[in-house]
Amino acid sequence: MSDRDSNGDKDIQFQLKAVLRCSSSLDAVSASEFEEFLRDCSREGGILRRGAPPGGGAELLRWGISGSDLSLELRSDRFVRAHDALIRLKKELGRFLARYRIGIRGVEIESYKIAMDWEWSPRLRLKRLPFVREQKQDEGRLTLYLDVDYAALERRIPDRLLRLLDEKRSAASWRGKSEHWELLFESGKKRFLFDKDPTEEMLKRNWISHAAGRGQWIYGPQLTRLFRTFEHILIEEVLKPLGYVEMIFPKLVPWEVWKRSGHAKGIYPEVYYVCAPKTRDPEYWEEVMDYYKVTNEVPLDMIMERIEPVGGLCYAQCPPFWIFLMGKTLPDSILPIRVFDRSGTSHRYESGGLHGIERLDEFHRVEIVWIGTRSEVISHANELRERYRRIFDEILDIEWREAWVTPWFMAQEGKLGLAELKEVGTVDFEAVLPYSGKWLEFQNVSVNGDKYPKGFSVKLQSGKELWSGCSGVGLERWAAVLLAQKGLEPENWSEKLRQLTGELPEVFRFL
Amino acid sequence: MSDRDSNGDKDIQFQLKAVLRCSSSLDAVSASEFEEFLRDCSREGGILRRGAPPGGGAELLRWGISGSDLSLELRSDRFVRAHDALIRLKKELGRFLARYRIGIRGVEIESYKIAMDWEWSPRLRLKRLPFVREQKQDEGRLTLYLDVDYAALERRIPDRLLRLLDEKRSAASWRGKSEHWELLFESGKKRFLFDKDPTEEMLKRNWISHAAGRGQWIYGPQLTRLFRTFEHILIEEVLKPLGYVEMIFPKLVPWEVWKRSGHAKGIYPEVYYVCAPKTRDPEYWEEVMDYYKVTNEVPLDMIMERIEPVGGLCYAQCPPFWIFLMGKTLPDSILPIRVFDRSGTSHRYESGGLHGIERLDEFHRVEIVWIGTRSEVISHANELRERYRRIFDEILDIEWREAWVTPWFMAQEGKLGLAELKEVGTVDFEAVLPYSGKWLEFQNVSVNGDKYPKGFSVKLQSGKELWSGCSGVGLERWAAVLLAQKGLEPENWSEKLRQLTGELPEVFRFL
Repeated sequence: MSDRDSNGDKDIQFQLKAVLRCSSSLDAVSASEFEEFLRDCSREGGILRRGAPPGGGAELLRWGISGSDLSLELRSDRFVRAHDALIRLKKELGRFLARYRIGIRGVEIESYKIAMDWEWSPRLRLKRLPFVREQKQDEGRLTLYLDVDYAALERRIPDRLLRLLDEKRSAASWRGKSEHWELLFESGKKRFLFDKDPTEEMLKRNWISHAAGRGQWIYGPQLTRLFRTFEHILIEEVLKPLGYVEMIFPKLVPWEVWKRSGHAKGIYPEVYYVCAPKTRDPEYWEEVMDYYKVTNEVPLDMIMERIEPVGGLCYAQCPPFWIFLMGKTLPDSILPIRVFDRSGTSHRYESGGLHGIERLDEFHRVEIVWIGTRSEVISHANELRERYRRIFDEILDIEWREAWVTPWFMAQEGKLGLAELKEVGTVDFEAVLPYSGKWLEFQNVSVNGDKYPKGFSVKLQSGKELWSGCSGVGLERWAAVLLAQKGLEPENWSEKLRQLTGELPEVFRFL
Repeated sequence: MSDRDSNGDKDIQFQLKAVLRCSSSLDAVSASEFEEFLRDCSREGGILRRGAPPGGGAELLRWGISGSDLSLELRSDRFVRAHDALIRLKKELGRFLARYRIGIRGVEIESYKIAMDWEWSPRLRLKRLPFVREQKQDEGRLTLYLDVDYAALERRIPDRLLRLLDEKRSAASWRGKSEHWELLFESGKKRFLFDKDPTEEMLKRNWISHAAGRGQWIYGPQLTRLFRTFEHILIEEVLKPLGYVEMIFPKLVPWEVWKRSGHAKGIYPEVYYVCAPKTRDPEYWEEVMDYYKVTNEVPLDMIMERIEPVGGLCYAQCPPFWIFLMGKTLPDSILPIRVFDRSGTSHRYESGGLHGIERLDEFHRVEIVWIGTRSEVISHANELRERYRRIFDEILDIEWREAWVTPWFMAQEGKLGLAELKEVGTVDFEAVLPYSGKWLEFQNVSVNGDKYPKGFSVKLQSGKELWSGCSGVGLERWAAVLLAQKGLEPENWSEKLRQLTGELPEVFRFL
């Protein structure tokens, strides 16, 4: 999305007052020369109007000289926004003044006002906006009084602010609507052999235990065996036959990764943040240790003063992998690339509705990534789905369905719109949990288009479009579905699964 | 360590002024009755002196009544510290006043001064101490003016403060001395086939790539294959034969775990802290998202206001496992317990001397934990060492040595003293890196005594002492040693290792 596609059809007006500070008195330039220069800028086709339809663009309302200062007041429509006009004008003026050996030392923005059509809606309550000193809404108009310096104009802050307003407007019109969901496939019916909540049952049997943290479990030998069996099945039935190799992706995710992956736009409410000590000097930390030793309480406020946020815990798993390829050009001959990672935990600050091993703050997932040309990536997603189906049907022996949903990365960036795309998007695998009657998403297969290669600047030697896809296998989710439909007794599992798990290890008994 | 073993041999004086606020006027009690009561408390063997040697204990310097307030001034030696005397006196007085239907509503501490012998040392500069308003050092005496309320006295803050001073004194006397280190074993000599830095070499070959974070790598297919081969060797040669079963330990470590494991005393400078959102409400985060969308910069200050620290990332790996057993009584028949975890990353904020894959902020480790009686745990540590030796000698084919060092948990709690213990302690495995001539610790085996069962309140049905041990296998460290001594060409590795790794996968080439 370019910076310029917003507010295209709205009546909008920009009004900007600025002072250009020059290196010496402007008296050296005659008034008539100045007038001619500015008239030239303002004429049809001049720099204040270039690119706008006839009669459109920016206009210079007022100007004045005082010593080495040039004051300007610009007004514009949406075609040449006043800040763009100012940037153009500064450049042109620099050239003009160079003849008199005068330079432009700096630009001060006295005021910048943007007014636009704005329909009031109860679903869209505007709060404090960044770089906006004051905002007024009345009679179908919204007026923003910006608090910006020239550097902010050069950084296109006003353009991104308008785009943000557009986003808020469309988000408000979606609100209340559900995510896109379209049934693609339904498995055959299977017999359910259990009607209890498997988490409760596992707690009773000491298969799992609550850990010290929120939404966090400690997995005993039996469930761990099941998880490792799932990994084994995935490797033997899917990853090896499809030519995947294992890599190890980082698990602490610095901001840079989420800026490139797009997550920095919207995941804040769900992230576990990671902070590093401001220094490793033990003296800097002595007061904290002393306080702990004297009170047996960890002094949270003292800690907060001594740390700084460096990123978050693994959330979507594949983004940090892309740093491996960042800025690289790949020879076409190495495609398709097929890698997976199972080297650590994922963490999400989940909503109040934490429930058992189905919805967790800390979970375990195998992440699968494939990269290739557009057609390779699309057809591979279908191959993967075929192979997953065989596992769910023949080995896990469960009942499930598949649906086309809002792409995961759009949802994670806070976008909830329709999945209007035909090729880029996410297929969710869902299964019913007999004890609650609810459907649980336990698996996904996503075609992400050119999103990641673009975000991380990865190119193909031939110049062809590079695409990628990913699929996350949540071990807790597979277990939740299997155990809810079949129960905890291996004799109710398929023969194949029973063979692979072997006898479940019994280690702990408590009095 | 009890609260009371500190300052035993020092001249120390406590002086405390307090006011007891009663529920009604004390005029109802005659002066003579009051005097008799207080005389009784003060006599040899009375509550102010009970437990102290003859002539020792606390004494009442002054007292006075004003309406419903009783003012007291107490002075004591180290035998009945003034705050203990006050606590005893309050209790006794409560009984005495009950006869007059008067209750004690509250206790206000007007001042509390502690003065003690204190040798000045350039190595021990006292900084601000918790609960100390002012401190003075002169002529071999240290005087502390405490800022405490009665609840703090009940929580034994003064006692822990004195213990803290003792700790600082002994830490200062260790400073500059190195950790304990005693050679236990040296392997046979081996031929070194490489003299370069393996990290540099791996970077050239795209086996690894710098990740976005500090001290963090992305591991390509070749090195990942080697790591998984190490795990396979460990499982086949050590864990299976010794009866280990796999579990999954949590990787986000809440404060509670580190309070019980002892780490809360000292790891602050090295921890990666984890913070959770104060709420998951998207409106609460809207300003952050807006700021990001308008500037493309993550607003760190705004984030810091919206998060709270809940703990840290996995540091020592086994502590969070102990929550599984916390508060439980185990039947003796389930011993020995032998479990391992390889489910995620460990993180340490390492000092400036980050170097290659040898010293990392994010690393991968298999953690091995055994639990049993004292003799079981000690002899199992030796069995483990024997099996590790066979791997290092026959499969990795490296040269190494083993040393008895300061126990890891003492080091991690900030204690650097001699490893004077014979049975509880850590054996480090170290190997020389030919390219630098430096020794690298690549493995440890520790007997932790009853530290964890005590810290997490785990008991044995028979009442026998429960012990535990742990051993961390750092995959990066094994690789660093193997590759530094043998190089990156599998043909220079042992036949056995070559068979197990198979052909290393080649996936990536860049232009």
